[in-house]
Amino acid sequence: MKAVIIIDMQRDFVEPGRPLCVAGAAETVPACVRLLDHARRNGWPVIHVIRRHDPEGRDCEPYRRHLFQGRQGYCVKGTDGAEIVGPLAPQPGDHIVVKKRFSGFYKTGLDALLEKLGITGLIIAGTQYPNCVRATAVDALMRDLPVTVCTDCCSAQDTDTAAANICDLRAMSIPCLPLAEILKMSE
Amino acid sequence: MKAVIIIDMQRDFVEPGRPLCVAGAAETVPACVRLLDHARRNGWPVIHVIRRHDPEGRDCEPYRRHLFQGRQGYCVKGTDGAEIVGPLAPQPGDHIVVKKRFSGFYKTGLDALLEKLGITGLIIAGTQYPNCVRATAVDALMRDLPVTVCTDCCSAQDTDTAAANICDLRAMSIPCLPLAEILKMSE
Repeated sequence: MKAVIIIDMQRDFVEPGRPLCVAGAAETVPACVRLLDHARRNGWPVIHVIRRHDPEGRDCEPYRRHLFQGRQGYCVKGTDGAEIVGPLAPQPGDHIVVKKRFSGFYKTGLDALLEKLGITGLIIAGTQYPNCVRATAVDALMRDLPVTVCTDCCSAQDTDTAAANICDLRAMSIPCLPLAEILKMSE
Repeated sequence: MKAVIIIDMQRDFVEPGRPLCVAGAAETVPACVRLLDHARRNGWPVIHVIRRHDPEGRDCEPYRRHLFQGRQGYCVKGTDGAEIVGPLAPQPGDHIVVKKRFSGFYKTGLDALLEKLGITGLIIAGTQYPNCVRATAVDALMRDLPVTVCTDCCSAQDTDTAAANICDLRAMSIPCLPLAEILKMSE
């Protein structure tokens, strides 16, 4: 059975003006809504992989620690910036995995969750291509877990960055497919 | 103390005509020689992270399994294709870590080796940018282990791919420096 992993679609990454807004993320929200609807109709688990950081950023990457010093940080636990954007808000039955680094697999319970659910393939949505999307996809590939990236549901700061990452992902055998192709799948 | 991680500089990846030759790899060999010399002079451990596969490819990525079916495969244990290229051959005191996937950290003893050696920073050399170089660098970043990529010592199939990956790596805070800058470092 497939699962959809939707990564970091939180207000601090998606909404313009937020600390780490990814320019391309907001426009993917409608496609993500359609993907999650399709997943739920097919009984595919929806797994939100998100960040929640300490107010002082003690648990974030050292190179981003400065964003917490005299500033508001990002995805701070309990703040609105850490919320998943409204249209993608978790629904009953969804799963939430909190990560502190790029990959959804790095020091999280994702491996165990996928095993428990009997997942044999992943569809990846979310943001952003060069960091969390790619790191999670590559970690799935290294586990021999079939993984597909949904191009209408993933984003980057600009289209060149997205295109270069899609090129690399395809070269390593990872299908990068438009939403329309994913919506044809039911198993 | 720093360590140099040199990735996949094996004949099957470096020599033209070999099964998985990376077009840009051969020309980086002289720079890699200089980097390893510098490392040894400074007492930095040299860690060769390489592949050695089963003759039937049962331990390689599923998407590359076909390379072993009726064909010679790549980096097969005991064959000349698995040898590190002559000028970079391991010297006494070097370390060898065998990996089966992209990242040097994935299901290997690299974490434990770095801890035992007291390593506090990595310099990465080898091939190729979008796969094993980047996956290893990102895994170091996720561990909060300072990591620098030596651009004269890393390669891809073409310069556009190399450039796009360097751009992404820099955006995630990873310095990508020419050899001349690394040679100025002694600690």
